[in-house]
Amino acid sequence: MAPAQQRLDPPSRREHLLTVGAKLFGEHAYDDVWIEEVAREAGVSRGLLYHYYAGKRGLFAAILGAEGKKLAAATKPDPSLRPVERLRASLDAYLDYVQENPDGYRAVHRGALSADAELRAIVQRNLDRQARRILSAVSSDDPAPKALQLAVHGWLAFVIATTLRWLDSPTISREQLRELCVRTLVAALQAE
Amino acid sequence: MAPAQQRLDPPSRREHLLTVGAKLFGEHAYDDVWIEEVAREAGVSRGLLYHYYAGKRGLFAAILGAEGKKLAAATKPDPSLRPVERLRASLDAYLDYVQENPDGYRAVHRGALSADAELRAIVQRNLDRQARRILSAVSSDDPAPKALQLAVHGWLAFVIATTLRWLDSPTISREQLRELCVRTLVAALQAE
Repeated sequence: MAPAQQRLDPPSRREHLLTVGAKLFGEHAYDDVWIEEVAREAGVSRGLLYHYYAGKRGLFAAILGAEGKKLAAATKPDPSLRPVERLRASLDAYLDYVQENPDGYRAVHRGALSADAELRAIVQRNLDRQARRILSAVSSDDPAPKALQLAVHGWLAFVIATTLRWLDSPTISREQLRELCVRTLVAALQAE
Repeated sequence: MAPAQQRLDPPSRREHLLTVGAKLFGEHAYDDVWIEEVAREAGVSRGLLYHYYAGKRGLFAAILGAEGKKLAAATKPDPSLRPVERLRASLDAYLDYVQENPDGYRAVHRGALSADAELRAIVQRNLDRQARRILSAVSSDDPAPKALQLAVHGWLAFVIATTLRWLDSPTISREQLRELCVRTLVAALQAE
């Protein structure tokens, strides 16, 4: 049962709407989600939903932003670890996040497919943040050499493609997926 | 100048419409391309365009199919080469294709972003064909082990992400891009 409309304070209500939205946007294409459905699932009126998020697009943008921040916080690298161990630890945290938030993760990557340029830009900003973090760990130059930038952006596409596929069909273990991602990044970053 | 409407025979006309369409769909999001614009650029009436391709969606689907076939033909592996050399030769052919057909390549990957499930399915079929070809070269099992399937699908996402980025901003040489893709696949396929 969805919580009744009057029970939650505004921050909890916002959080709840984001969760319900992530579930629906994770399961269905953006165009196939109706704001009335989100309101019904959340146990609120359409008017209240609009009060918080100005409609479907605003709600989806808020979900993309919130998921990006959650993922960035969850995968903050531990500078006390050596590089490959730090990567392994961040990937473990990444996969923890994905397993705990499959709907949010799927919703974000559906957002990357959106025809709406502004929604795609939010997803791109999240990706750029991840890329900068990896680049600052592997290069003392700022900006990092172009070859490394290209390798890291390509690798993020690799991680997302394998993770989405694995989430739908976990045919290998989580550790195998992590090690696949580790050795692929190590190879991509290798000097020629 | 676009060829006048009466000058081309039907196969040449179809080919010309595909070329003009690929250019527009490569430069602009699907929703921002108007069928009237395609007809004007191609020097034909809207009616003639509909006669050949039943509208924007039909034209775009035909472009996706044609580009997939062209790419598959261009990158046909040479079985006389040893595995890594065969991969290198196929990647060279892939990058030749991309450099000769940048609009078509971009259009295909915009198609992958389409909200239209049927258009996305055409792009997915092209990708699946590429994946099967690579898998049959690296595994004698059919279907190939799940871990290899995942690695190859992830690697295709890597190649597409790096190639699209490189096409917009060729900050490294073509040979560097090819070698980046080679060593990444070798690592991804490595047994644990």
